[in-house]
Amino acid sequence: MSRAALPGFRDFYPQEFAERAYVMDAWREVTRRYGFVEYDGPPLEPLELYTAKSGEEIVGQLYVFEDKGGRKVALRPEMTPTFARMVGAKLNALRKPVRWFSTPQLFRYERQQKGRLREHFQLNVDIVGEADVAADAELLACAIDVMREVGLTSKDVRARVSDRRLIGALLSHFEIADKDQPLVYAVLDKLDREPRDVLEKRLTDAGIAFHTVGSLFEAVASRDLDELRSRLGGMRALDGHFETLGRYFELLEALGVRDWVQLDLSVVRGLAYYTGIVFELFDNEGEFRAICGGGRYDDLLATLGGTAAPALGFGMGDVVLGELLRSRKLMPALEPAVDFWVACDDDALLPDVMSVAAKLRGSGRSVEYSLKGQQLSRQMKAAASAGAGQVVILLRDQWSGGSGTVTVKTLADGTERVVRSDVLLNFPMQDNG
Amino acid sequence: MSRAALPGFRDFYPQEFAERAYVMDAWREVTRRYGFVEYDGPPLEPLELYTAKSGEEIVGQLYVFEDKGGRKVALRPEMTPTFARMVGAKLNALRKPVRWFSTPQLFRYERQQKGRLREHFQLNVDIVGEADVAADAELLACAIDVMREVGLTSKDVRARVSDRRLIGALLSHFEIADKDQPLVYAVLDKLDREPRDVLEKRLTDAGIAFHTVGSLFEAVASRDLDELRSRLGGMRALDGHFETLGRYFELLEALGVRDWVQLDLSVVRGLAYYTGIVFELFDNEGEFRAICGGGRYDDLLATLGGTAAPALGFGMGDVVLGELLRSRKLMPALEPAVDFWVACDDDALLPDVMSVAAKLRGSGRSVEYSLKGQQLSRQMKAAASAGAGQVVILLRDQWSGGSGTVTVKTLADGTERVVRSDVLLNFPMQDNG
Repeated sequence: MSRAALPGFRDFYPQEFAERAYVMDAWREVTRRYGFVEYDGPPLEPLELYTAKSGEEIVGQLYVFEDKGGRKVALRPEMTPTFARMVGAKLNALRKPVRWFSTPQLFRYERQQKGRLREHFQLNVDIVGEADVAADAELLACAIDVMREVGLTSKDVRARVSDRRLIGALLSHFEIADKDQPLVYAVLDKLDREPRDVLEKRLTDAGIAFHTVGSLFEAVASRDLDELRSRLGGMRALDGHFETLGRYFELLEALGVRDWVQLDLSVVRGLAYYTGIVFELFDNEGEFRAICGGGRYDDLLATLGGTAAPALGFGMGDVVLGELLRSRKLMPALEPAVDFWVACDDDALLPDVMSVAAKLRGSGRSVEYSLKGQQLSRQMKAAASAGAGQVVILLRDQWSGGSGTVTVKTLADGTERVVRSDVLLNFPMQDNG
Repeated sequence: MSRAALPGFRDFYPQEFAERAYVMDAWREVTRRYGFVEYDGPPLEPLELYTAKSGEEIVGQLYVFEDKGGRKVALRPEMTPTFARMVGAKLNALRKPVRWFSTPQLFRYERQQKGRLREHFQLNVDIVGEADVAADAELLACAIDVMREVGLTSKDVRARVSDRRLIGALLSHFEIADKDQPLVYAVLDKLDREPRDVLEKRLTDAGIAFHTVGSLFEAVASRDLDELRSRLGGMRALDGHFETLGRYFELLEALGVRDWVQLDLSVVRGLAYYTGIVFELFDNEGEFRAICGGGRYDDLLATLGGTAAPALGFGMGDVVLGELLRSRKLMPALEPAVDFWVACDDDALLPDVMSVAAKLRGSGRSVEYSLKGQQLSRQMKAAASAGAGQVVILLRDQWSGGSGTVTVKTLADGTERVVRSDVLLNFPMQDNG
């Protein structure tokens, strides 16, 4: 029998599961505070759901196959198409703006990337039905509040924001032809990672004037909106976009997250997808890939055949965030823990042990006991290794006919109290964290 | 674009997701009380993981395909093989008994069963490393406590239990040849659903004596262990099995679930799988398929190539349980609910609204507000449809420079209080459930 998971897939032993649950609980806690409600869709979808959005070239990155009914199907590589399908099917009946989130497991199969994971879990948060920039601020604040929830600060993580409309207007102003714009976006996307002169040459080779490239790079290097605005002040076509971005920063300030956010027009993200403000969250040390990315995609619902509606959202994976938390010692360890262990000094008392355990469980406590007769000393050892807060000990000479007195020992400090079994259920729980 | 999920797959809109979460929360709450810890494995596994346990014929029921690396893979149809692989790989390092649970989504593709679901979620609870019948009682009590947790009673649900070892000894006593035993099990499995004379004929046609068939059917019809024991009292080979079953019922009594449980030797379950006590949970009206099934499978870990270890477990799907809860009006409806809605009577106050919302969220409350300027009356309507417990209203003439007094209106009774914004965070939350 195969003793391993498939390459790129994770086994979640209890410790790994607890780490995943810690991240996902933070996702759910923060989205709950923002009034988002959870949905889910199938992990297997018709292939056309993805090719309709991303073209046939996406097929090379998917787990795709033909099912026994002859349907071309794929394991979901992202949640947005499912989200768009579900919202599109019931948009008229839904309360607007739609504020939904999901925490799906997603799958990618890229042959060349051996050793990389082929699945991850991803928080997806989306708002549909609101064009106002307040929605953009609300969305980014939610992503940043997840960072806070897991103990990260603005010293650890930065949100880099751009506006696709502003960039578009800038390129138009610089009279860069539409056909060259994909190249320009590709170059912007690499500003952090490749030498400036190499990137300049790629643009001038495409016929873009050297002084235009210089102006563009200067504009994109700006990290301050006012400074950028005064530099480009003569461009009236940009005024509306500056006002939107200025408002965005003002509302991020109101939401208490402004100090996490930095203007960075080199943030590009999906080319055929986003239509307005876009953002990415990165660790400040530049050690990891993006923690989170998202933005406004006002055209997508219509593109996917649904009703047109303004929309925006982000995705945040569990893998990069988990790596960051571990590297910052912010990932809690799973300590085994039960509230009570019930023990006895006579095998014949096992039914009584089980009865006490059942009653404690009935009051909401977590309880374990030895599932067979064992020496009391071994039971005490098992209780300790189970992380029991307290051990309830039934002793033969203090017990008869299903009741008696029990000794309750708190393992943390070794203190013992003797109580009647019928008052045990009102006994206060010790913190065993 | 396709506007529907694949046949047999479910879209979980927020209401459906809330129902699924209600069931899964009950699963997690009860297993927590029993000291089980959660794990998970990949939804995609090597095909051989399933053929090793169930033979090649299982392939006809699976989503199976070849991945781009030429591996035969399958969407997991059950969790036990993954569980056995994971436990087997680390058995020596794990605290014994292993008490794990999981809540995977599982997949089956059976061509002939159109209209039936092809995926469901299933609670899997397993214990490894304990041969004592106390473990069998503990396991069944856990399944039954899930029923209690979702509001079902012993009037709604019955646990039918059998013992494969007792049945085996009975068949040996009746001198039924090993080769005929699969037929006998198949007949027992149909006792509820087919006429007795048809089933008798199938056995006598196979050469089993008519009087043997009669004795067997009489034994299997018994619902009382003592009655059965006295009837078969002469069979010394059965004594040990009767003692085990008697002890099982005694321990189920101690665990407080005896009144849910009924002896029923017609319960068969997986033929090549279970080795001891087996059980199934059914609704008492016989309206639905099994809610839950499980038992002892002491040989499986060794069969799957791991270390031999006594083991037992059950699976409980979300679909049948959900149907039962809905039919008994026990499935709660998802009511939209946020703790607070923040509103204002002047669009210019939107940043202040967002600042108040951020502070309330920072104290753990769930908060919504209008993401654009709106008439106060429309905001109040939106607050009501969002299920807000309280609305915090910022009025232009009571607010300046980021602070002031606010009106806090409780929507349930219409009462209003005016408080300073800086004491708002200490304002008690209303129950908006």
